[in-house]
Amino acid sequence: MGYTDKDWKAINTIRTLAVDATFNSNSGHPGAPMGMAPIAHVVWNKFMKFNPKNPSWLNRDRFVLSNGHGCMLQYALLHLFNYAVTLDDLKAFRTVDSITPGHPEAHDTPGIEVTTGPLGQGICNAVGLAMAQAHTAATFNKDGFPIVDNYTYCFLGDGCLMEGVSGEASSLAGHLQLGNLIAVWDDNHISIDGDTNVAFTEDVKKRYEAYGWHVISVEDGNNDLEGMEAAIKEAKSVTDKPTLIALKTIIGFGSKQQGTHGVHGSPLKADDIRQLKEKFGFNPDESFAVDQSVYDLYAAHAAEGAAAEQEWNKLFAAYGEKYPAEHADLSRRLKGDLPEGWEKSLPVYTPADPAIASRKLSETVLSKIEGVLPELVGGSADLTGSNLTRWKEAVDFQPPSTGLGDYSGRYVRYGVREHAMGAIMNGLAAYGTIIPYGGTFLNFVSYAAGAIRLSALSQVRLIWVATHDSIGLGEDGPTHQPIETLAHFRALPNCMVWRPADGNETSAAYYVGLTSKHTPSIVALSRQNLPQLEGSTIEKASKGAYVLHEVEGADITLVSTGSEVGICVDAVKELADKHGLKARVVSVPCFEVFDAQPKDYRLSVLPDGIPSLSVEVMTTMGWERYTHEQFGLNRFGASGAYKDVYKKFEFTPEGIAKRAVATVNFWKDVPNIRSPINRAFEQLI
Amino acid sequence: MGYTDKDWKAINTIRTLAVDATFNSNSGHPGAPMGMAPIAHVVWNKFMKFNPKNPSWLNRDRFVLSNGHGCMLQYALLHLFNYAVTLDDLKAFRTVDSITPGHPEAHDTPGIEVTTGPLGQGICNAVGLAMAQAHTAATFNKDGFPIVDNYTYCFLGDGCLMEGVSGEASSLAGHLQLGNLIAVWDDNHISIDGDTNVAFTEDVKKRYEAYGWHVISVEDGNNDLEGMEAAIKEAKSVTDKPTLIALKTIIGFGSKQQGTHGVHGSPLKADDIRQLKEKFGFNPDESFAVDQSVYDLYAAHAAEGAAAEQEWNKLFAAYGEKYPAEHADLSRRLKGDLPEGWEKSLPVYTPADPAIASRKLSETVLSKIEGVLPELVGGSADLTGSNLTRWKEAVDFQPPSTGLGDYSGRYVRYGVREHAMGAIMNGLAAYGTIIPYGGTFLNFVSYAAGAIRLSALSQVRLIWVATHDSIGLGEDGPTHQPIETLAHFRALPNCMVWRPADGNETSAAYYVGLTSKHTPSIVALSRQNLPQLEGSTIEKASKGAYVLHEVEGADITLVSTGSEVGICVDAVKELADKHGLKARVVSVPCFEVFDAQPKDYRLSVLPDGIPSLSVEVMTTMGWERYTHEQFGLNRFGASGAYKDVYKKFEFTPEGIAKRAVATVNFWKDVPNIRSPINRAFEQLI
Repeated sequence: MGYTDKDWKAINTIRTLAVDATFNSNSGHPGAPMGMAPIAHVVWNKFMKFNPKNPSWLNRDRFVLSNGHGCMLQYALLHLFNYAVTLDDLKAFRTVDSITPGHPEAHDTPGIEVTTGPLGQGICNAVGLAMAQAHTAATFNKDGFPIVDNYTYCFLGDGCLMEGVSGEASSLAGHLQLGNLIAVWDDNHISIDGDTNVAFTEDVKKRYEAYGWHVISVEDGNNDLEGMEAAIKEAKSVTDKPTLIALKTIIGFGSKQQGTHGVHGSPLKADDIRQLKEKFGFNPDESFAVDQSVYDLYAAHAAEGAAAEQEWNKLFAAYGEKYPAEHADLSRRLKGDLPEGWEKSLPVYTPADPAIASRKLSETVLSKIEGVLPELVGGSADLTGSNLTRWKEAVDFQPPSTGLGDYSGRYVRYGVREHAMGAIMNGLAAYGTIIPYGGTFLNFVSYAAGAIRLSALSQVRLIWVATHDSIGLGEDGPTHQPIETLAHFRALPNCMVWRPADGNETSAAYYVGLTSKHTPSIVALSRQNLPQLEGSTIEKASKGAYVLHEVEGADITLVSTGSEVGICVDAVKELADKHGLKARVVSVPCFEVFDAQPKDYRLSVLPDGIPSLSVEVMTTMGWERYTHEQFGLNRFGASGAYKDVYKKFEFTPEGIAKRAVATVNFWKDVPNIRSPINRAFEQLI
Repeated sequence: MGYTDKDWKAINTIRTLAVDATFNSNSGHPGAPMGMAPIAHVVWNKFMKFNPKNPSWLNRDRFVLSNGHGCMLQYALLHLFNYAVTLDDLKAFRTVDSITPGHPEAHDTPGIEVTTGPLGQGICNAVGLAMAQAHTAATFNKDGFPIVDNYTYCFLGDGCLMEGVSGEASSLAGHLQLGNLIAVWDDNHISIDGDTNVAFTEDVKKRYEAYGWHVISVEDGNNDLEGMEAAIKEAKSVTDKPTLIALKTIIGFGSKQQGTHGVHGSPLKADDIRQLKEKFGFNPDESFAVDQSVYDLYAAHAAEGAAAEQEWNKLFAAYGEKYPAEHADLSRRLKGDLPEGWEKSLPVYTPADPAIASRKLSETVLSKIEGVLPELVGGSADLTGSNLTRWKEAVDFQPPSTGLGDYSGRYVRYGVREHAMGAIMNGLAAYGTIIPYGGTFLNFVSYAAGAIRLSALSQVRLIWVATHDSIGLGEDGPTHQPIETLAHFRALPNCMVWRPADGNETSAAYYVGLTSKHTPSIVALSRQNLPQLEGSTIEKASKGAYVLHEVEGADITLVSTGSEVGICVDAVKELADKHGLKARVVSVPCFEVFDAQPKDYRLSVLPDGIPSLSVEVMTTMGWERYTHEQFGLNRFGASGAYKDVYKKFEFTPEGIAKRAVATVNFWKDVPNIRSPINRAFEQLI
């Protein structure tokens, strides 16, 4: 309370910086920063606890700008609070290689928690951050040691609320009673198509009440700083529900075009900027002007944050005295390191072991490693019994009042909400104490494409347990059988797509996925049983591709993944017996990892001089990069028992052998067959 | 009202057929059909208007099973009402090449309107069907001629309600006041993870009220047929809101395991089936038993439907007398044909025309053809001014009471709801009178991946206007710049991905998209201006790929799409001037269409004897199928002015020339260079 001109100076400085930066770069979205500057000031300067000099302090409050196009709001705040974001950085807004890109990117800019912009994602990330806080608190806090008690604040706009993914996550957040989550809806009635009346006339507040949220209205988000402060206070007082504050604002406040979509996505005109600066008491001839009083005001709050961190450091040190094991565990997690020797828990198989579905092999991995990796927090989008994502004694992550678990529980019931699961995992991973995994059918990982793209771009570590990975799921049929899915995510940069062929390869997928700190993984797993292969090891599979079966004077290399590798092994015999041909077999559990191996290794796996044939029961797209010929399925599958479906499409030893013979014949007149590994030039990476 | 044992016999026959079929095929979901048999009986036998002998009668009521895993409910109904679904078809449930696949597929089975199973999709399809009815009625109905007045009924389960896409579409349906839409929520409190209490405790009814729906509760969906009938009557009486009927049922009603997720996705045990049949008065030793009285009961209703169609045929003939133009237009639309000569309206360009962004060229196409193609009904997911999807005089599709348009309007304000837009378009297309299109940024087409997959599988005609198609969008940065998107959808069977290079190619994309009755299209369009190319024509581009620039004795073929084709043309000059190399240029606006051309044509475009280099500013994945070397972007983009971004990644005439030189050098020692068009064997299609 007690707001003065100093506060308004700060607020209007945020506005003018947003106006100047978008004008300067002739690109960007001034409207949201101008409208939300008052609430941002209240939240950041009155409530949020953070130390700009250490943006990774664990117990900081988290801030998520779900309407990420308004990022000049966030960049301006980061600058004014003295994060490592300079005025020059603001001047470089939206230019190549700046730390102030067109939408906030977590890995580049100090103080940006998650990557936002694609609408609906940020609020889900915020749900994930809040879940992570609740889980970390339940796991580590002790009497007198509130190691984490931070809040997560999220700003979001109408666009975020229209996106279904936000509804999924908000429903779950209500169920989970996340009292540590405070979201502010910028209720400005404007989206790109104009007045939201054209498409968005639902009663948002009632909807959020239906989700189990506490909902507060603030009628004047442009002027009523006291009202905003009171709303946040009220939100903090409600500890068993997330809060949505419906804040009425005027988009582009201060512009001649305020309240219209004209200020949403384009810089203001020069004359408009002049009148705005005059109105706000700024020199209209100056740009990027910051009064020292604003820096001072914010420096005082930043100093409080720095002091709070100091206090916390003492607290955490004392905690270490009393709870050395927990202290060590948490400290290790914060570095992103796994416990020494954890990988010894990964199961190892020999060909004598029985054939097992790789989804079941995945369950075994999880069951074996969960004890040594307490940061593993997983779940499923309502397919627990099919994805096999839950170890036997797992406790559900639930509000204690439900009687179904508690917040220290490590198993999340996501409901049928794949996209939210993906976006929430991004938030869980961003918190810093958790490695998330989530299960669904591979086909429905596509529902979460928007979130997975941001996992990759944000460089977070998480694992999709993607079972029922092909036509091998059988009876559910074409609606559930992936064809394009692996190609899609193999084409996504910084995303590992694994399709293990047996137990050792499944362990390898987890090994590499868990030790890759900056890359998400999708592990495609079979519904049907797969034999344990002669020649597979965790070490070899960890190279992304390797020679499973070698033979002197080979006529062809069969190159395959997952459930088809075993059939290729059978095809080797068929080729030898019926056609007098010698075949090597290469297993390629992960393109992305194989591509990162040295060229001589890659050439040893896929050598010159021998034609190669890929075998995978889905699109052939992408396989031309590795093999001369491709056997795949460039059509939709079929509903039936899986063996019948494989037979229909000729994914049998005979069907493979037939195409191998065709390949050998087709290439026999080519002298010096060149491996596709050889390239005329290197790709830009 | 006045339900008798005959009704219960029919209801229990639906149940036993579902039980027998899932037992017989040892696969499938008996629980939902058993729980929903009573409501299905009421809806189909008391309310729905349809003629099983003509499943494509325009004015039939539409039925959508959004919880498509319960498809034995639908197959049983289709059989009992005497659609062309036999008992043998039911016995072939979930076997290869049957018309009774694991989830309902629209193109295979008479009486299935849309393809469902992936959760959340069906209810959105139903919204589309209801929108299509409202639009068709507003367009064609006249005083005394209610040509279409059908309802759309949709059953959905908890899973559908948890999926965000259903929330998006339901919010829009409420806004649009679709009184012709009646949805029944199978409120059985069970999903795969068990009791919905573990993840789904929101107040669904309140949420739907918030969306602007009329909500009715029926407490006993197992027994209270009168209550169900009254609810549907009430729903029909509310004409300015869609209705959600919250129907409490017991999943797997009659099984010893009823009310548990044990009956959800697995067949019942033999002894359970025995007791159930005995309880229902069936012979436990018989399976697939249908009492003649059930056929008779349903035949009577089917006969009413057939008579109603007869009446309608008379009405439509009389309509033709009075409104010959409308009659002709509607008749043509129902055949899926376009008006003779419509393609003459497509704009044609010469190199003298100015450089124009292809999103703008797309706008010109829409503006030129909308008059001759009145079935074109489009919109945007709140990016109208960016996607340029709205022709100038378009009327919005809106409830008249909003004052913003009316139901005859052809422009849909979808809001920021890409996934629902995709799923709604599937419904719009399925209705039979509309060709839908929808706009968003290419990057956010991925949000709708789940719906687009079903567009392709369902073989519907619709067009995505996917603008801002690359790093060429510039400042918005990596969060908005597609890298993997084209590869993703190129890998999807039966989906045309277009990336036109200029005006003629843009016209070609629309030409092929609109004349392909059974294939959806995604048209990727630039934000930035593109020159009109020498050598492009609609006809040539309609082949998917063609030689844009030919040269005698070429050293290399440059192969490209969209905005990079023009840069390749400039690179030709660079190669000639600086390197003494002769280059051909091939433009490939659409892989899928090119793949369907005869081999000799494909070889004429990408001939033997010359090395080739693809150039596209996104993932190289997929290009290995056509070219020897690939220049692309296998990493995320950058935020900045588009020319700076292109320069950073060397997509300039110089950067292309450099790689072309490397390609020529790398391949110069290879005798008889083979075009990748040559393959050892044909793919299965």
